[in-house]
Amino acid sequence: SVNPDLAMERQTASFCVEKLTALLDGGAEQTRIRRAVVAAIESDPVFSRENQYFQTQNERYEAAVRKAVHLQKKMHEMGWTENGPEYKYIYRALSGDIAFLLHRVFMRSISVLGSDKQVAKWIPPATQHQLIGSYSQTELGHGTYLQGLETTAVFDVATQEFILNTPKISAMKWWPGDLGRSATHTVVFAQLYIHGKCYGIHPFIVQVRSLQDHSLCPGIIAGDIGPKMNFEHIDNGYLMLKNVRIPRDNMLSKFCEVRPDGTYVRQGSQKINYFTMTTLRISLLSDEVLTPLMKACTIAIRYSAVRRQSKLKPGEQEAKILDYQTQQEKLLPQLAAAYAFHFINNYLQELFDKGYREIQRKNFDMLPELHALSSGFKAVITHHCTAAVEICLRACGGHGYSLLSGLPSLYTKILASCIYEGENTILLLQTARFLIKCFMAASAGQPVPPSVTYLAAVKPGKCPAKNKSDFLSPDIYTEAYQHVAVRLISSTATKLQDLIQSGVKKYDAWNQCTVQLVQAAKAHCHYIAVKNFAETVERLETKAGIQRIMKHLCDLFALHGIFSNTGAFLHDGYISAAQMDMVTASYLDLLAVIRKDAVPLVDAFDFTDKSLNSALGSYDGQVYERLYEWAQKSPTNKMSPAYERYLKPLLHNTLSKL
Amino acid sequence: SVNPDLAMERQTASFCVEKLTALLDGGAEQTRIRRAVVAAIESDPVFSRENQYFQTQNERYEAAVRKAVHLQKKMHEMGWTENGPEYKYIYRALSGDIAFLLHRVFMRSISVLGSDKQVAKWIPPATQHQLIGSYSQTELGHGTYLQGLETTAVFDVATQEFILNTPKISAMKWWPGDLGRSATHTVVFAQLYIHGKCYGIHPFIVQVRSLQDHSLCPGIIAGDIGPKMNFEHIDNGYLMLKNVRIPRDNMLSKFCEVRPDGTYVRQGSQKINYFTMTTLRISLLSDEVLTPLMKACTIAIRYSAVRRQSKLKPGEQEAKILDYQTQQEKLLPQLAAAYAFHFINNYLQELFDKGYREIQRKNFDMLPELHALSSGFKAVITHHCTAAVEICLRACGGHGYSLLSGLPSLYTKILASCIYEGENTILLLQTARFLIKCFMAASAGQPVPPSVTYLAAVKPGKCPAKNKSDFLSPDIYTEAYQHVAVRLISSTATKLQDLIQSGVKKYDAWNQCTVQLVQAAKAHCHYIAVKNFAETVERLETKAGIQRIMKHLCDLFALHGIFSNTGAFLHDGYISAAQMDMVTASYLDLLAVIRKDAVPLVDAFDFTDKSLNSALGSYDGQVYERLYEWAQKSPTNKMSPAYERYLKPLLHNTLSKL
Repeated sequence: SVNPDLAMERQTASFCVEKLTALLDGGAEQTRIRRAVVAAIESDPVFSRENQYFQTQNERYEAAVRKAVHLQKKMHEMGWTENGPEYKYIYRALSGDIAFLLHRVFMRSISVLGSDKQVAKWIPPATQHQLIGSYSQTELGHGTYLQGLETTAVFDVATQEFILNTPKISAMKWWPGDLGRSATHTVVFAQLYIHGKCYGIHPFIVQVRSLQDHSLCPGIIAGDIGPKMNFEHIDNGYLMLKNVRIPRDNMLSKFCEVRPDGTYVRQGSQKINYFTMTTLRISLLSDEVLTPLMKACTIAIRYSAVRRQSKLKPGEQEAKILDYQTQQEKLLPQLAAAYAFHFINNYLQELFDKGYREIQRKNFDMLPELHALSSGFKAVITHHCTAAVEICLRACGGHGYSLLSGLPSLYTKILASCIYEGENTILLLQTARFLIKCFMAASAGQPVPPSVTYLAAVKPGKCPAKNKSDFLSPDIYTEAYQHVAVRLISSTATKLQDLIQSGVKKYDAWNQCTVQLVQAAKAHCHYIAVKNFAETVERLETKAGIQRIMKHLCDLFALHGIFSNTGAFLHDGYISAAQMDMVTASYLDLLAVIRKDAVPLVDAFDFTDKSLNSALGSYDGQVYERLYEWAQKSPTNKMSPAYERYLKPLLHNTLSKL
Repeated sequence: SVNPDLAMERQTASFCVEKLTALLDGGAEQTRIRRAVVAAIESDPVFSRENQYFQTQNERYEAAVRKAVHLQKKMHEMGWTENGPEYKYIYRALSGDIAFLLHRVFMRSISVLGSDKQVAKWIPPATQHQLIGSYSQTELGHGTYLQGLETTAVFDVATQEFILNTPKISAMKWWPGDLGRSATHTVVFAQLYIHGKCYGIHPFIVQVRSLQDHSLCPGIIAGDIGPKMNFEHIDNGYLMLKNVRIPRDNMLSKFCEVRPDGTYVRQGSQKINYFTMTTLRISLLSDEVLTPLMKACTIAIRYSAVRRQSKLKPGEQEAKILDYQTQQEKLLPQLAAAYAFHFINNYLQELFDKGYREIQRKNFDMLPELHALSSGFKAVITHHCTAAVEICLRACGGHGYSLLSGLPSLYTKILASCIYEGENTILLLQTARFLIKCFMAASAGQPVPPSVTYLAAVKPGKCPAKNKSDFLSPDIYTEAYQHVAVRLISSTATKLQDLIQSGVKKYDAWNQCTVQLVQAAKAHCHYIAVKNFAETVERLETKAGIQRIMKHLCDLFALHGIFSNTGAFLHDGYISAAQMDMVTASYLDLLAVIRKDAVPLVDAFDFTDKSLNSALGSYDGQVYERLYEWAQKSPTNKMSPAYERYLKPLLHNTLSKL
């Protein structure tokens, strides 16, 4: 039975929820396939996440391994293949709670970086799980700066082997997934030395554990790096190498080869490889960042429609907390952001597909732009969504703080996305470098990539809005975002040039501008996200109320951004104080409008109760019943030895006889 | 041996670290006492937190009980008493990792709310730990809105008993600390009914577990609420009451009594009680909020002085990440905030001591102001410090994400402070209500409390700063903060009045202003914090470089606040765009200045390695060695049954035969 407070919210939806779900999925057929996958996974008890919040790190690891092994069988049974339409939904249906994810990275590395001979040797046994692969890049002392990795691989001409070593503790491999306990093989990145000369970082296949009894191979010291904020199910590992010898054929040699006599040969272009790495940043957004935010919104908004606390009007019953303006102001902008980022993610996917086709035709022109966009949006989206999930958690008060709400796990997991696959500040500075370059080129009348042509058309001007409803015009706010992006990029470019002209060394000048460069890069991405949302809304069919509600969300996303960062818009008077008051008024009005559809808007994300795994967020809104039911299952409700050991003597008053 | 990169940082300190430590402690004698307590606690293996990051919730609970019992013995041995000068350092030295904290709240409730007879009956056995007390207020369905609590206590004249019941699931007590597994007694808050009439919420002493065998008493259903983001060591509990009968004497009756015939009598003033509750919000700041932030700053800044990554100048060795402007911009404002909030906390403590003396003299005039300050600062400081700890965590990249860094635990624990003892948004709205009232009074020429007299002296004007160094003048920036606070309070008051005059009901108008009211309350607190920091600096002795470095931190705290919230200052042109560029320039300059003293400034917090419990933050800065050493102790490095069960069959290729 559905909580009547929640049922009521659904009766008044201004749009067709099923239509919106299909839009999000990319068509009704995709929705059908996704639901079939979810149903198959969730009906299988091996994949259950029911006791997840009660499990230790060891139990989580074991369950993840069990699931990974079972998944092979399941795929076989269901007829799912790695190239089939179902594949992309499997990981989402499992909420990523599965082992051996690095096995795929291991295989991809060999496919991309290995010679044909190496691919022929390693891919078939890897495909058949006759070995378990990992990927060992990051070291204790180096993450961001790959050139600084310290592991060495010295070529021994006499034996035709590479000798791998961890010369000091900071060179120990640290973090590789699946390496701590599972992997038998891994790709190790190390500095290549031939005849005493260093040739830089190269990838080597190294066996770390016996295929017979899983014991560590000679010269290998490896284990698990211990507890983390999340990812308890993954055995992130450490690896030390002591004179580990591997045959010459184990250096992945599609692009660089060491001949038997020690001659080093470069061959081919690594640009496709580089593009693959760039693509990774975008491909993780959907499952690792957007889905968690959508789940958090679903949980927090459903809960806020069921939770009643205090009275809004004297004499009436207690109000739903979703009716308080402050609660709306916490949650609804996060909901709008989830939609905004869903659409920008679609835009980026399309752009990258186009980029891939161009690269196949040996046209690498798009690479710098794609790199800048993927870096900037990876940073902006992960940062924004992490903050948003935290807001959702806090908006649920004490119950949000319980693991049973599901929100803490969503938060601790999404937080990692700000760090992995490129630390966010570093990435934003890469985007900034591209923007400064393009701004200089545009100023000099040179052509620039499509996403930054706006830098060439700098108009001073003022915002033309006359009343608060003008701020519901996408042209008005998109223009304002564009203006701010141009202003921040150009003023930082000017500061940089001024510093250099005043005699400051280029690298010092750059460092002194980095705080502002980061701001500029964010402004650029924010502008593109707003513009893309507005353009997406324009293209939607007007039927079924979808376009209208998406327009509201687009307006909210845009106005929330202005409201939260008023200084950027007020600074040069582009938006006046009076206009800013209109923005505020329009923004607050929108909260009340969208609030009416808040529950249908999260229903459209179409999460099952099992996938949310939340006592607060279930479809039926039976929050208190579920919290109680779940708490009773906690291992903390088993008998504890603490009573006999400590409490009994205490209560029987031994202490006072001390 | 200290990491040379860290040793170098200490050689160039511009001030005397020991002097600053004494200043923070409130005198060298206090430092001595604190260190003695810390030494005694940390040398006792029972209090060790060494394996904390590896323990399950059950293990944490058991250790906390063990420590609580052992502490009694320790205090006896050491001659420490609850009224001695050592007492306040014990909890800090234990990092709060101890059970039975609610026992003190139980005792305080009885002392404050109980009659003399009740105090005489319950306090002696409680003091001797012949029972373990808890405090049961919050229910599944009600936290913030106490009037809405649903537990009932019906007076039965025939038997002279109260009959306690949990009429529905939402009325179940939820969250009370020590209740899940330990407590034998608790104070239950319930709606009192006599002859069918409800008299509102009253406190009742209820026994929940047998003193003989610790089994649950008849009619009691209780247990642990399960896993949380932190506080694994506390058995937060649930409690359902089914016709639980307690004698009439068990209603705490200092202020309200039920006579044998059912007559209800009110007596005395509850104002002191109300003051006690208000004080709680301030008293938690030091140990629960400021100490965690100081620890996080210590960890992140020491790590940033040791971690080298990428090159700042071509050809040189890799740079300390603390030398990057973006890293400074992340960490140094948090360090400045830690000092700012330490000083505002001192100010509040003094104010509350003064308030207490006034109340003793039956002068209750200060109560509204104290309530507004404690609500506002509790919200502002917990919010700011929580965000700051998260920034510290993220600034340490992947290593910050490991539990071994200590940062995840600091974050997940401090986060709770935004929710408990008054949810932050609710508290800010209480401050706002006070501010609006005072603003109206001041506008009408009526007297207002000291902290808000500035509302009466509204000067329009503009910021007089002419160059960037003017923004290092406390008068300039304090005035700017004051201006913003007045503007936000007055404009929101105007909006509120306009709405009411246009016919909107008062409660609706209030709700429509709450987002802006929250902003106004924050601006008020921020102004007072800046002003207090500036005044504190002025009073410091100029010797030993202390005043100079504190002045820098004060400037940074103030300018960071402007830089992060430029719109508030630009809105009405009080600060012009050109002036804002000066603020930015001064702010960025300050980062480079304070960076030089960053390590000495965290050293002054004087945390021992054991109290930090962080592989990244130890005094010697041997980060990588410690991470490796600690990881090896993780239970995830024990043999897992996963190999035999799942990996072996997989690797021996059974799958391909499916």
